Amino acid sequence: MTTERNIAIAVTGFGSIGRRITEMLLDRREAYRQRYGIEARIVGVCGSSAGLVDPSGLEPERLYARESFVAGLTGEAFLGGVKADVLVEASPSDYVTGGPALHYLRGALGRGMHAIAVSKGALVVDLRGLLRLAGAHGGSLRMSAAAASGLPTVDFLQHSLAGCRVLSFEAVLTGTANLVLEEMMNGLPFADALALAQDRGIAEPDPSFDVEGWDTAAKLVIIANAALGADLRLDALPREGIGRIGPDDVARWRAEGRSPRLVGFLEYDGESPADDDGFRAGVELRTYGQDHPFAHLRGSMKGFSAVTDEMGVLTVVGGASDPRATAAAALKDFEHILAEC
Amino acid sequence: MTTERNIAIAVTGFGSIGRRITEMLLDRREAYRQRYGIEARIVGVCGSSAGLVDPSGLEPERLYARESFVAGLTGEAFLGGVKADVLVEASPSDYVTGGPALHYLRGALGRGMHAIAVSKGALVVDLRGLLRLAGAHGGSLRMSAAAASGLPTVDFLQHSLAGCRVLSFEAVLTGTANLVLEEMMNGLPFADALALAQDRGIAEPDPSFDVEGWDTAAKLVIIANAALGADLRLDALPREGIGRIGPDDVARWRAEGRSPRLVGFLEYDGESPADDDGFRAGVELRTYGQDHPFAHLRGSMKGFSAVTDEMGVLTVVGGASDPRATAAAALKDFEHILAEC
Repeated sequence: MTTERNIAIAVTGFGSIGRRITEMLLDRREAYRQRYGIEARIVGVCGSSAGLVDPSGLEPERLYARESFVAGLTGEAFLGGVKADVLVEASPSDYVTGGPALHYLRGALGRGMHAIAVSKGALVVDLRGLLRLAGAHGGSLRMSAAAASGLPTVDFLQHSLAGCRVLSFEAVLTGTANLVLEEMMNGLPFADALALAQDRGIAEPDPSFDVEGWDTAAKLVIIANAALGADLRLDALPREGIGRIGPDDVARWRAEGRSPRLVGFLEYDGESPADDDGFRAGVELRTYGQDHPFAHLRGSMKGFSAVTDEMGVLTVVGGASDPRATAAAALKDFEHILAEC
Repeated sequence: MTTERNIAIAVTGFGSIGRRITEMLLDRREAYRQRYGIEARIVGVCGSSAGLVDPSGLEPERLYARESFVAGLTGEAFLGGVKADVLVEASPSDYVTGGPALHYLRGALGRGMHAIAVSKGALVVDLRGLLRLAGAHGGSLRMSAAAASGLPTVDFLQHSLAGCRVLSFEAVLTGTANLVLEEMMNGLPFADALALAQDRGIAEPDPSFDVEGWDTAAKLVIIANAALGADLRLDALPREGIGRIGPDDVARWRAEGRSPRLVGFLEYDGESPADDDGFRAGVELRTYGQDHPFAHLRGSMKGFSAVTDEMGVLTVVGGASDPRATAAAALKDFEHILAEC
């Protein structure tokens, strides 16, 4: 491409991840010019109480100065005022109602914009509805950052396995749970292993979302509904956590040379992936022998394995879990939009 | 999409893989209609001495009947007579001149067609030239089947890691070499291990291409030149094979708990991936501890690992190595063309 097109980007939810995404995007502008012949501009950002809009593009000196923000320029006022091609949505997750994130995604897709979802809540609540909305208005919805960020999941299933049917899928998706399990296998009781992970700043002060399997379940719902032809609901998904593992379990797994992992899974038993009766899905504790890549997921590493009809079994492990990887995942989505549009 | 577009496909090189691709493509026509709103038609096929062209589309009864083929309808006569949007090129590999495959790919890309390369030779000889030709005429060149087929490589690096820089890459790319190494670790001398693989129909009657590292080198050249910013040449690539491994090596690796693998690698040491002095690449024997996914690649399994700047380390293992997987990889490329065009 040689003609330069302007691409206007808006960001809703301007916390640390939203800010990181804008920094990385501004850093990569020259690469976008060269690779896609486009001029990327951030034309608006907003948080929960204030925002900033400028069609000519926002540079760091205004973007990162709180005093330049306009109080009340958020929600519908922001969405109605900003003229953007792409929305990056990074508001906090609300797994019950979808929260402001769902409002922003619907508003953007309903206006024909492309949307990049960074947080999980809105996708868990209404991914199918959002995809329909995108299809009806000519935009698209991407979600690499919400679907395990540094570990490619949805894009791998859709692109690298294009044309194949996935017969079964299992995935280690919650770094914190994996780290706690590792410490338990090293001999610590659950509570001590969890405290250690909290001391290191890896587990949240309220870790129940991670250790009770909700985080894995939320990511599975997104991946399965976006890329595996399912229509899972978070509250209906069978789910277990890692809190009930006792010293006897640990001793037995050690003697057997097996490694416990908290996995989200989906297995089709019939011919039709679209048939609700034809599959089993959930979050459960599984153990793996030392010849399986999942057995060697150290610390907060993630991974998934997919059994396909035509291409055999593919297993992907690794991917960083830090804010930089999350920002890079969101901007991967941005490049997919540029490549296809 | 609701409007149906016609997509015309031509296939050059109509041996067992070319035929398998047409069978799978005809089977998937309904899926293409539903997913992309297109009507896929095979409008011509040719082998080395005869071909068949029909703009209205070829069905199995003519496609798989030798008597319907027209002698001499091959080469320039075929390419000049067939009007297609996409060429699937599956002629035998010629690693010195590129052979008829290179001729077909250049002819198709020079006419603005999209091209799907199935065999490796032409890509090894002139991948950069072919990519430039595609860029100049508005087509595209895809090569999943030539770049490890069932194991996604080029598409993974370009799509799932879009925006990231790959700092180093290593890959197990030759199933036969891996199988022979496995049997050697089980105690067989090289010659016996190779004979066993030949008896099973996995190693070629002339296995030197696989066991001397040429196959790995050829795939590395394609992957690196297509997706890692390199410009490697097959004949200039440092390369070793597995023929010189002795019983002492095997005994030492066993004692150390390490698994030998024949790997293609590329490592950037500097800031600029485009700088020829800034990297090391080659094919060499490496050993892996039992915590590395490569140590557990059984039989003819493949895999690769990529260290990135932003997304951490990603490792992908698995993927079938049979003709069905190769055909599925070529049709994955076809879906990528449909998705982007």
